[in-house]
Amino acid sequence: MRIVIVGGVAGGMSAAARLRRLDESAEIVVLERGGDVSFANCGLPYHVGGEITHRDSLLLHTPASLRASLNLDVRTRHEVIAINRSARTVTVRDLEAQRDYDLTYDDLVLATGAEPIVPPLPGLDRPEVRTLRNVPDADVLRRMLDEGARKAVVIGAGFIGLETVEAFRNRGLEVTLIELAPQVLPAIDAEMAQLVEAELRAHDVDVRVGIGFVAVEDSATEHPIDVVLADGTRVPADVVLLGVGVRPSTALARAAGLELAPSGAVVVTQAQQTSDPHIYAVGDAIQVVDAVTGAPGVVPLAGPANRQGRIAADAIMGRSVASSPVLGTAIVRVFELNAAVTGPTSRRLTAAGVEHRVVHLHPGNHAGYYPGAESIHLKVIFTPSGRLLGAQAVGGAGVDKRIDVLATALRAGMDVDDLAELELAYAPPFGSAKDAVNMAGFLAQNLLDGTLSNWSGTDLDSTLDGSVLVLDVRSAQEFESGHLPGSLNIAHVDLRARIDEVITAAVGRPVRVLCASGFRSYLAHRVLSAHGIDSASLDGGLQTLLAIRPDAPLVVGSDFAEAMRS
Amino acid sequence: MRIVIVGGVAGGMSAAARLRRLDESAEIVVLERGGDVSFANCGLPYHVGGEITHRDSLLLHTPASLRASLNLDVRTRHEVIAINRSARTVTVRDLEAQRDYDLTYDDLVLATGAEPIVPPLPGLDRPEVRTLRNVPDADVLRRMLDEGARKAVVIGAGFIGLETVEAFRNRGLEVTLIELAPQVLPAIDAEMAQLVEAELRAHDVDVRVGIGFVAVEDSATEHPIDVVLADGTRVPADVVLLGVGVRPSTALARAAGLELAPSGAVVVTQAQQTSDPHIYAVGDAIQVVDAVTGAPGVVPLAGPANRQGRIAADAIMGRSVASSPVLGTAIVRVFELNAAVTGPTSRRLTAAGVEHRVVHLHPGNHAGYYPGAESIHLKVIFTPSGRLLGAQAVGGAGVDKRIDVLATALRAGMDVDDLAELELAYAPPFGSAKDAVNMAGFLAQNLLDGTLSNWSGTDLDSTLDGSVLVLDVRSAQEFESGHLPGSLNIAHVDLRARIDEVITAAVGRPVRVLCASGFRSYLAHRVLSAHGIDSASLDGGLQTLLAIRPDAPLVVGSDFAEAMRS
Repeated sequence: MRIVIVGGVAGGMSAAARLRRLDESAEIVVLERGGDVSFANCGLPYHVGGEITHRDSLLLHTPASLRASLNLDVRTRHEVIAINRSARTVTVRDLEAQRDYDLTYDDLVLATGAEPIVPPLPGLDRPEVRTLRNVPDADVLRRMLDEGARKAVVIGAGFIGLETVEAFRNRGLEVTLIELAPQVLPAIDAEMAQLVEAELRAHDVDVRVGIGFVAVEDSATEHPIDVVLADGTRVPADVVLLGVGVRPSTALARAAGLELAPSGAVVVTQAQQTSDPHIYAVGDAIQVVDAVTGAPGVVPLAGPANRQGRIAADAIMGRSVASSPVLGTAIVRVFELNAAVTGPTSRRLTAAGVEHRVVHLHPGNHAGYYPGAESIHLKVIFTPSGRLLGAQAVGGAGVDKRIDVLATALRAGMDVDDLAELELAYAPPFGSAKDAVNMAGFLAQNLLDGTLSNWSGTDLDSTLDGSVLVLDVRSAQEFESGHLPGSLNIAHVDLRARIDEVITAAVGRPVRVLCASGFRSYLAHRVLSAHGIDSASLDGGLQTLLAIRPDAPLVVGSDFAEAMRS
Repeated sequence: MRIVIVGGVAGGMSAAARLRRLDESAEIVVLERGGDVSFANCGLPYHVGGEITHRDSLLLHTPASLRASLNLDVRTRHEVIAINRSARTVTVRDLEAQRDYDLTYDDLVLATGAEPIVPPLPGLDRPEVRTLRNVPDADVLRRMLDEGARKAVVIGAGFIGLETVEAFRNRGLEVTLIELAPQVLPAIDAEMAQLVEAELRAHDVDVRVGIGFVAVEDSATEHPIDVVLADGTRVPADVVLLGVGVRPSTALARAAGLELAPSGAVVVTQAQQTSDPHIYAVGDAIQVVDAVTGAPGVVPLAGPANRQGRIAADAIMGRSVASSPVLGTAIVRVFELNAAVTGPTSRRLTAAGVEHRVVHLHPGNHAGYYPGAESIHLKVIFTPSGRLLGAQAVGGAGVDKRIDVLATALRAGMDVDDLAELELAYAPPFGSAKDAVNMAGFLAQNLLDGTLSNWSGTDLDSTLDGSVLVLDVRSAQEFESGHLPGSLNIAHVDLRARIDEVITAAVGRPVRVLCASGFRSYLAHRVLSAHGIDSASLDGGLQTLLAIRPDAPLVVGSDFAEAMRS
């Protein structure tokens, strides 16, 4: 029995290793077009940035080590150029020897991955314009930096784009980041991405969102090239990293007549089987099903790729297995900030017509009285009946933990009541007796059972038109530092004694209450409700409002930034 | 309507705050025997140790701040001395004014907590013998340290005991730790606790396990007292911390005739209602149900207490609610090491007659090629059909995250297939494409479907009696540094070529394979199985074997410790 695997990274190598563990006698041939197999593609930006100092660290295995350990026949620089399905052969080009040969297979695994999208714009073939997908790509970038590149443009503010921005800044380059979408990190919602954008700016990254580029041209400056933006702006650069996304690399599957999705991705069953029962496909090249919306899509992430490789091996060996739908759980570190997501964004749910509710909150990563506590900015999305749909978190320590807990809850089909009752490990250095995830559950429960009515930063315009009373329940000092025009300030601790002032000022209008983070306004909202006053509490407080509407017309005092931290 | 709450920390204060948010008009009276309410009891050891420098940080609220924010009537130094259930009154003693008064209630919440167990042994009334349950306790300890205490004995190696050991060492004291059980941290299994014990010893703590103390007496040394152990040993000390556990503080409930469990804990419904429908109870004073075994028990942890307080408030307000059974998720930091648990231990499952399987593994907290990776020592427990029963983790960074993910999976009733398919957030600084929890799932799947047969350190004696061949598949260098007597060394990469040597040496005996962590021996086991050789792989490798059997008769070379890290 011979199994041929096309592609020797993540999914392909997982399949090969698992196949050997399940079958000692099968002949397992791994054909890899590039010069390396089983390399740490997710580590490339950290090698460029100098955190991973040794190039060898990225090369987890060699053909020789895989032969010794797993008796795999790994052939690098061997490209599969055709599949003959009826004969069950692949035609292989030995790129070194420049000769072609045929190889029969009993089963074939396609792990051809994805390739960077290179828009059809002039100048992208210039040597200063690079992508970052493999070790030689990293070598080139490192060499350019070593040779004195000082000014970089990163095009695309997705995961690889942001990690490369960080790498370039760590190496001391001036960096301009260009993103066509109106926000950085389109994998998360805009108001969460706003925090990431602020972090980028705080690290002197020149962030340009909502604008495309049209060409790369010769520069009149001391730098070799200009990236020309859609508005005619020219951004000089020594190096350009193109990170506008990837597309499934499926020319081989297409030529072989395998069923492809409109996206170009290979269509597979839950056992990773393509439309040809002897051909399996895994990883970035395939179409997956969104676990929450059920929609088909492409999710180029290492975790699913590795697990799919394992599932494909099991299926080939006759085991009854099924890959899980994909949540799209992901995380990126951007300087001191971490941003993570599981499940679809509000934006994607809205586009898919899925009715949903959200809560924003800013709990501490651990007990506030223990030194070093910092806020986690958390967004949790759920159905009107309370089922969890997704979550996003931005902050420092503990962001990864909360998203992993929520990804587990999402996989389990938990609802917000379950989040409230999760029993997570608590000691002061690690969390709080009521963990951030519990707090999200409480808040969502309150919203759904009517204990809490929220208003949102998206309601800002109708809030400022005089049709409502804005009641700011922060302290007088916080209020002075910055507040919405026309708002009434009564600290929440004074509200019971001054309730008549609210009634007088409201003159029958609804009251929209706000504070910094949403907790004190919730308390005030409960007091107002008990007095029969129609009121709502600002979801996530001013912190979230200003992330949703950075242009909010605040009356700002001198110590605004300081006050927002309280 | 008046609701009276007895006890103003964790559960009691959660109930009070939630009650106010649900009912603006109710009269809510909180009666607290001590001088403080809503203090950070979990922070006390960190204040003693100096990490939390300001005493005020521990006092999260005062009666005045709770009046202002939530209109609560909080009375400290007011002790409830009797409940008159038929009249629905409590008799309250004002400890300052030394007068008693009666207070009627519509509903009563008992949050009386737990009290330290003080064994009936001579000398425990000496002023040098302390417990640590409240802020004045911390004040006393800090004063003793400030006044020159240099030598401490901590009795009891549970959570508070270990946190206090750390605190004392941080303050420069010599510390002896005494534990009656044969291991430290009885909340986890012995082989996991072995790692904690090693960490304590590495920080110069004199650890004495498996021995009790019989008295505290005058010392003939320069220190005021000796702790006298069961074997007659005398350990001199300036200060003794008694941390042998707590018991539910339910004298009041008992005197009122409420139904108590044999443990002394108050029996409650899922709505936190006692046998009197107008009396609710929450927190350390109550009996809870173990989520996994269904057994009743007492779990004095802050997380459940806080959530139970919230549930009690909801129930009093007529909401249909139910507290969850308790997993006992907990974590403790011991110097550089973190130890965490969710669900029952193997020891407890065995005692309860619950059939179970375990896997031990030592995956990295994040990608190995990213700087700073360290091992997480992980134990996962599951039924023979694969349902998750519990987990324990010991290590540095990332221990809390994995236990929280596993606690969520346990709450969801996940099985090991679900663990394999969890989609957790991966980037090199945070995890691996196959996360530690995925790896545990893979391993458990392999064990249950027969892809993997394990042997365990508990089988050591029968392994060394000549009835099996021990095959050590580490490198020659690792083998030389330390190995089991009589074992055959063939590195796993050489096994295929040297398989005949194994067959010859085995002479029909089963083969027990081992490596450092269990992965290479798994690969070797698969090769042997394919050759028809009866074999098994050592669960968790030598790392786990030596934790199970620290007395294993190793043939040890000079660089053993170094080799074990690989």
